[in-house]
Amino acid sequence: MSGAYPVRAIPPVVSRTRSATMSGVAPRVGTLVVQAPHEKGIVSTVQQVLARHGVTVLDSAHYSDAPSRTLFQRLQFDLSGLAGLSDRVTLERSLRELGERCALQWRMWYGDRKRRIAILVSKQEHCLYDLLIRHRAGELDCEIAMLISNHPDAAPIARHFGVPFHYLPVTVELRASQEAAVRELIDRAGVDLVVLARYMQILSPAFVAAYPHRIINVHHSFLPAFIGANPYRQAHERGVKMIGATSHYVTAELDQGPIIEQATVRCEHRDAVDDLVRKGRELEKHVLAAAVRWHLEDRVVAYDNKTVVFAGPRRGAGGRGRGGGGGGHLRCRRGSQGGGGGQRNPFDDSSVLIAARVVRKSHVAPTLGVS
Amino acid sequence: MSGAYPVRAIPPVVSRTRSATMSGVAPRVGTLVVQAPHEKGIVSTVQQVLARHGVTVLDSAHYSDAPSRTLFQRLQFDLSGLAGLSDRVTLERSLRELGERCALQWRMWYGDRKRRIAILVSKQEHCLYDLLIRHRAGELDCEIAMLISNHPDAAPIARHFGVPFHYLPVTVELRASQEAAVRELIDRAGVDLVVLARYMQILSPAFVAAYPHRIINVHHSFLPAFIGANPYRQAHERGVKMIGATSHYVTAELDQGPIIEQATVRCEHRDAVDDLVRKGRELEKHVLAAAVRWHLEDRVVAYDNKTVVFAGPRRGAGGRGRGGGGGGHLRCRRGSQGGGGGQRNPFDDSSVLIAARVVRKSHVAPTLGVS
Amino acid sequence: MSGAYPVRAIPPVVSRTRSATMSGVAPRVGTLVVQAPHEKGIVSTVQQVLARHGVTVLDSAHYSDAPSRTLFQRLQFDLSGLAGLSDRVTLERSLRELGERCALQWRMWYGDRKRRIAILVSKQEHCLYDLLIRHRAGELDCEIAMLISNHPDAAPIARHFGVPFHYLPVTVELRASQEAAVRELIDRAGVDLVVLARYMQILSPAFVAAYPHRIINVHHSFLPAFIGANPYRQAHERGVKMIGATSHYVTAELDQGPIIEQATVRCEHRDAVDDLVRKGRELEKHVLAAAVRWHLEDRVVAYDNKTVVFAGPRRGAGGRGRGGGGGGHLRCRRGSQGGGGGQRNPFDDSSVLIAARVVRKSHVAPTLGVS
Amino acid sequence: MSGAYPVRAIPPVVSRTRSATMSGVAPRVGTLVVQAPHEKGIVSTVQQVLARHGVTVLDSAHYSDAPSRTLFQRLQFDLSGLAGLSDRVTLERSLRELGERCALQWRMWYGDRKRRIAILVSKQEHCLYDLLIRHRAGELDCEIAMLISNHPDAAPIARHFGVPFHYLPVTVELRASQEAAVRELIDRAGVDLVVLARYMQILSPAFVAAYPHRIINVHHSFLPAFIGANPYRQAHERGVKMIGATSHYVTAELDQGPIIEQATVRCEHRDAVDDLVRKGRELEKHVLAAAVRWHLEDRVVAYDNKTVVFAGPRRGAGGRGRGGGGGGHLRCRRGSQGGGGGQRNPFDDSSVLIAARVVRKSHVAPTLGVS
Repeated sequence: MSGAYPVRAIPPVVSRTRSATMSGVAPRVGTLVVQAPHEKGIVSTVQQVLARHGVTVLDSAHYSDAPSRTLFQRLQFDLSGLAGLSDRVTLERSLRELGERCALQWRMWYGDRKRRIAILVSKQEHCLYDLLIRHRAGELDCEIAMLISNHPDAAPIARHFGVPFHYLPVTVELRASQEAAVRELIDRAGVDLVVLARYMQILSPAFVAAYPHRIINVHHSFLPAFIGANPYRQAHERGVKMIGATSHYVTAELDQGPIIEQATVRCEHRDAVDDLVRKGRELEKHVLAAAVRWHLEDRVVAYDNKTVVFAGPRRGAGGRGRGGGGGGHLRCRRGSQGGGGGQRNPFDDSSVLIAARVVRKSHVAPTLGVS
Repeated sequence: MSGAYPVRAIPPVVSRTRSATMSGVAPRVGTLVVQAPHEKGIVSTVQQVLARHGVTVLDSAHYSDAPSRTLFQRLQFDLSGLAGLSDRVTLERSLRELGERCALQWRMWYGDRKRRIAILVSKQEHCLYDLLIRHRAGELDCEIAMLISNHPDAAPIARHFGVPFHYLPVTVELRASQEAAVRELIDRAGVDLVVLARYMQILSPAFVAAYPHRIINVHHSFLPAFIGANPYRQAHERGVKMIGATSHYVTAELDQGPIIEQATVRCEHRDAVDDLVRKGRELEKHVLAAAVRWHLEDRVVAYDNKTVVFAGPRRGAGGRGRGGGGGGHLRCRRGSQGGGGGQRNPFDDSSVLIAARVVRKSHVAPTLGVS
Repeated sequence: MSGAYPVRAIPPVVSRTRSATMSGVAPRVGTLVVQAPHEKGIVSTVQQVLARHGVTVLDSAHYSDAPSRTLFQRLQFDLSGLAGLSDRVTLERSLRELGERCALQWRMWYGDRKRRIAILVSKQEHCLYDLLIRHRAGELDCEIAMLISNHPDAAPIARHFGVPFHYLPVTVELRASQEAAVRELIDRAGVDLVVLARYMQILSPAFVAAYPHRIINVHHSFLPAFIGANPYRQAHERGVKMIGATSHYVTAELDQGPIIEQATVRCEHRDAVDDLVRKGRELEKHVLAAAVRWHLEDRVVAYDNKTVVFAGPRRGAGGRGRGGGGGGHLRCRRGSQGGGGGQRNPFDDSSVLIAARVVRKSHVAPTLGVS
Repeated sequence: MSGAYPVRAIPPVVSRTRSATMSGVAPRVGTLVVQAPHEKGIVSTVQQVLARHGVTVLDSAHYSDAPSRTLFQRLQFDLSGLAGLSDRVTLERSLRELGERCALQWRMWYGDRKRRIAILVSKQEHCLYDLLIRHRAGELDCEIAMLISNHPDAAPIARHFGVPFHYLPVTVELRASQEAAVRELIDRAGVDLVVLARYMQILSPAFVAAYPHRIINVHHSFLPAFIGANPYRQAHERGVKMIGATSHYVTAELDQGPIIEQATVRCEHRDAVDDLVRKGRELEKHVLAAAVRWHLEDRVVAYDNKTVVFAGPRRGAGGRGRGGGGGGHLRCRRGSQGGGGGQRNPFDDSSVLIAARVVRKSHVAPTLGVS
């Protein structure tokens, strides 16, 4: 009887590179993130600027940091009222004016373009797999522009997920030129975010400076405990009863950048270093994916070597069919920003606009996103 | 300068089907799991039987369930003293005698053979990927004999990881014959454990009965809450502040089998059903992988619709180079077991031996592993 | 030498009934919570009403429930602009008008009065101690008006913390009159919130109906699992690997009210029922204290048998010196509310005002706080 | 009607100083903890020594530390076979001989005597309350011999729980004599364990040396992060997303002793230092209580600046009615131990016996419990 069942020939199935769960037409959403000295009325002032331009706010949240008297505001709005390029240029001009008047910094993201990320990886592949699978499940609202590794091992993984792969080995002599090659690749591809998914090479200060708050790393300890090399071995030697992992923006000082997410798990005397490594892999995947997702959803503001992470709903995000794609999206207008210097880093996030001239001198302006 | 760096051609890299971290020659370890009415001296009696056969115990642990006065013991021993088939036959004869004398049940695993598992999956692929990646990282000490699905979608995943794939679609009419085909595939391949990695078909009582405590399922709720279909929707409607996932052995009653592992995560009013689904995926991966790993490491004893899960070290397990493989390992001796009936289920775990005739009538013998 | 040290006579120290950490003059804060059909502009409309009355908003947060198209908004504002009774009456009149126009429901709390709570307890004292100690540490911004128990055991605890104690035993015959005595005590004392800190008597539907969303209970399971009696025994029998506890508003259906907080902890096969009880105590304390604290901070809105729990900062709350106390605070104005019926339950939260006549018929108005 | 219910006069209820849940006659249990170089047969050798003396082992567990080739074994046995003093002396002589032969160290606890603890506290009272309430609930199997504080504030708490209170203020000049007074108090009372429940004075090296592995402290950070003063402020400044607490044995190096337990909790950008303090209190209570409980249950072995913490059941422990008390228990026999030197610290744990002369020179004997 069991023989009666015909085992089917497997139909050819191609690897899917876009979200498997994407369905239907998604609402297009824009996000405005603001940072300013906290003064009375500033929250509603920002909302009014949007309203004046016919923009419908879908959600807004703010956090007021009491010690520094700084306001952080995040607004999500309906993009349908900002279909044309000229509408956006006009809106941004108003924001720039407001910025100059109120020492307010802001950045804007139009959700009809997806961010592009590059993943850098060495030999360990768990974080890489995790990001690729989450992307495929629609959890990460971005395009994975490329995978770069100093080892060839990840090539089949890239192929399986349909992601371009670049093998750029590192040696002592090649270090500088390899880094230059990485920069060229990501700059040319218009990459918005660099994700170090257990990339075991230390980036040069120049590299880090070129992508402020746009490089996310995962450190396999509960920072600031066990800074530096071999944190699992350090943890084992100290006899801790919990281990952790940390995702953070990369800054010039190793392991000292603003923390985005942390997680911990219990361990015990039986756990050898290998067990800590195994348990830690779960943590690393979790904190790195969370940091990348929150960054892509414009939830994270780095400030004073810390981060503000807005909660809020996932409007139009991947799993529920965020649009992105499509034509007509606002590409860059790089020349028009910030008072216009052409000198700016071409990688600089095209949608981040900073009010360059802060009028009130007494306020030491913290920087938002890019410095 | 950056142009000076030659982007390398990617060398061909084949998918690895064996543990990436395996290295060197591993110690061979056997595991003996015992269940018996708890009487004075029983723990050391078992150890003495092993000692008499020249077997060195590496680790032993026991748990005495007070309400039922039942002892559970798990011993790991050095296999080097049991190289030959005749040594093993002799040892098992002694255990069988002890079993009959003391109403003791036992099962034995010789670690020089790896267990073989079959993974059944439907459309959701996160648990599948998770198991395959962990296997590749050496976390799961087994061979993945095959992947079976009622949908063709997982075929490229199977190909990427080098696992045989069988596409066995289900329709109302085909249900019985499809199940028969599944059974034939796993029986023919000598599969030791069936893992339902979000397999959305309900197995027939006959199927379940054929593999007692050898089918592991993941249920996407914190059982016994939200039994049945659509648990995330149920959880959302009830307004819970945490969701969970559960891995368990499959029994005839749906969602009622012995629980192996559970995990929970916070949720809040903002979380839509989709968010619960996303958060739940992490839990599902975690509890399923833990259950499979513990089963493979002979840590789990199902008893009284619960499970005892032994802690203990991971001797010779994957990540640290467990041997397995190699020639000369003891294949089955199926005919020789249990007093010899040829009637036994050919799938029945070859290494599980049960003292068939329990002499003391007054004791209603609980069954260990297989009944 | 050690003898040289004079062991001091202990100076008399009285039990402190007010927060030990209170210090300095605190900012007075009011809280407005709003629920309305989500329509464009409603968020800023509410803010504008406050602004028109010269009220400075310190913090605002909102949540828009997509499926029901309902908006929830929580605003905290500076009370200094609303010092006089007439200012408040005027503001509330405006809100009432807005409520009628927009089918908007609202409740208001002026932080210059502390809420008064009654704690009901049976024999188990861990939650009771926990609440009293947290109150003393300034975590709970309220006055503990009384402690009521159907056993005399808690009397010394009440004395130690300086809280009035009422011993009201229950028998089958006394049940109704005991409950009436409880109601009289809490009504006479102007109690705003009843906390069932492991009170093992089931309240009558009439009692529950009299204090809608103003009775908080702790249930010693992860609801909806293990509803009813002896949940730890139920959990033990089911062999779960985690246990939980739940705090919720009490409604007519036992264990079915809106969940405010839940927590879980791991357990294992070794854990006897007693161990689950011990582990569960920690969870019970945690979830009950969180629910009470959030209720006191006006963070919780019950809706559709769920709760919205606002995050936001703790403005002027206990630990950081919230004022309260002092003279001149607005006591009740009970007669003036809701369009003026004198029929209203005298216990009814004096600060909750509901727009009585919802104009737009098509909208089935969900009720906020009180129905 | 409600008036018909007579509010009862409260009967006088005295504070209970013994476990409220204690009931019936408890099984008397002894615990033997062993540490030795791991050699074949050592586990069963120890069991055989007990068996030879007619002692029934109820539970045994061992852990073999692979890197150091050290065995840790914990055995719980029925005390009824060791009723008389002479039986115990004979058993201990056998163990001493074994110890000398096998470089084995051991300590023994006869459960018919309860351990005595002293709690040292400064102004913060949450850990103090927590320990006293747990003790009262039967969670901590000990007598609380005294409460010592450098502030008078805790006096009413001590009175409420019926615990002797000593107020020993500290000033720069008094530091040495105060510490001497503390030592005299605890030595005279035969205190077995000193618990620093947020005692904010640093103990002198001499004090610490006098009670090796018998002083437990709680540190309000996830050690080794944020060593030293003001860890919550340090954590806030670093912008971590989780905070932790640590309980550990006190050693000469501040915050560097063997860790017994750790716990963590999430925090976020909104959390001010005060919020971290509040959240941290929960962690501190948890990790300190766990460490004290485990120590009292003889589960903890400090070794190589780490701890082994045995799981195992709670035999005869408080909540389930552990005996203790009663007549005829073995008090100390201090003079008869360790080969008899009268020089031993009178505080030294009477039940800890160390094989003084380790015969095999090549083995650098790690010390167990006391050094």
